[in-house]
Amino acid sequence: MTERKIIEEAVTQVLAALARLETPHTDMGIPVGISNRHIHLSADHLAILFGSGYSLTKVKDLKQVGEFAAKETVTLIGPKGVLQGVRILGPVRGFTQVELSRTDGFILGIAPPVRDSGDIAGSAGAVIAGPQGTVTLEEGVICAARHIHMSQEDARRYALADGERVTIAAAGGRGGSLANVLVRIQPDFRLECHLDTDEANALGLTNGDLVRLRPRGGE
Amino acid sequence: MTERKIIEEAVTQVLAALARLETPHTDMGIPVGISNRHIHLSADHLAILFGSGYSLTKVKDLKQVGEFAAKETVTLIGPKGVLQGVRILGPVRGFTQVELSRTDGFILGIAPPVRDSGDIAGSAGAVIAGPQGTVTLEEGVICAARHIHMSQEDARRYALADGERVTIAAAGGRGGSLANVLVRIQPDFRLECHLDTDEANALGLTNGDLVRLRPRGGE
Repeated sequence: MTERKIIEEAVTQVLAALARLETPHTDMGIPVGISNRHIHLSADHLAILFGSGYSLTKVKDLKQVGEFAAKETVTLIGPKGVLQGVRILGPVRGFTQVELSRTDGFILGIAPPVRDSGDIAGSAGAVIAGPQGTVTLEEGVICAARHIHMSQEDARRYALADGERVTIAAAGGRGGSLANVLVRIQPDFRLECHLDTDEANALGLTNGDLVRLRPRGGE
Repeated sequence: MTERKIIEEAVTQVLAALARLETPHTDMGIPVGISNRHIHLSADHLAILFGSGYSLTKVKDLKQVGEFAAKETVTLIGPKGVLQGVRILGPVRGFTQVELSRTDGFILGIAPPVRDSGDIAGSAGAVIAGPQGTVTLEEGVICAARHIHMSQEDARRYALADGERVTIAAAGGRGGSLANVLVRIQPDFRLECHLDTDEANALGLTNGDLVRLRPRGGE
């Protein structure tokens, strides 16, 4: 029995060492960026809401290169409620996309599905009101699936591929983990884990807090 | 090397079997109860807000014995915003306690600390308005720490003690885990894991969905 225990202990240590070797550098924290409700507008919709020839006024660069918060906001109207002052993020895109938390959805009385950015077919709708007009959006309202932006260099460091889904963990009194976090890799992406306000609040996170990747096979 | 592999495999299986033996019946799901923002009132505050001699009108029994949702609601006022129609839960208590999500806190412009129910010393304040008067609450506004109600019988089944903190896990597309969930054991408690709306939305949970206990030592 003593011999058996020694073997068990030895094998356990070997397996642990192997696991460490196979584990990428997941101990490096990833900073959190919290996405409040916002909207990306198409050029056509911008013209309807703010007038022909209108262009957005940048008030703040976002962490991802080229993205910015505009001075302009819109009002969203749903069957049960209204959200005022919804920030427009620029530049204009090929199509309009509204990103809400599930809490926001309850306020409007709609149930935006959890979707990766750009995947809006059959998603929820809402009415958008601007100073010069309104747009009835049949689809384009989503809960953006949590995701991590990273460069190829970061991806090598974490041993991750574009499109993978990973689990992140947060420490602290409201600590926990979130599964199915989409990894998005592009050369100019800056390392940032985008969560919505529900997710950040549930885990007690604020902007810039660090989350860690769970080793593969963990939950 | 083949022999080594056989030993490794055998030991792995033995260790897994031992782990299963030591694990309590954590595979039994615990139903989720989602707490929307609400208020418990003291008798004195009820009299100020609704008039002397007023008593609450029950509209719905809650799952926990004796607790009910009242017909009456109040308005909460903070430095940055207002929350209308905040439900009163009865019966009246020894002191007033407001339970908000962190999202609600941002709307009011206050930062309620995460606290176990009853632990209100030094917590946030707000103004409460009712049809007959207002109360300026200096403390008593909290984010209720996530917790599980269970009977002694359930506690034996899960091998848990009153006051323990456990980790729960949710499956699904927005799956994940929440650590530091307080276990509360009383003879008349019905098995229910109370989460606030931020926590439920972050994990994609609705009322009655099942969560599972993580084995001890897991995250």
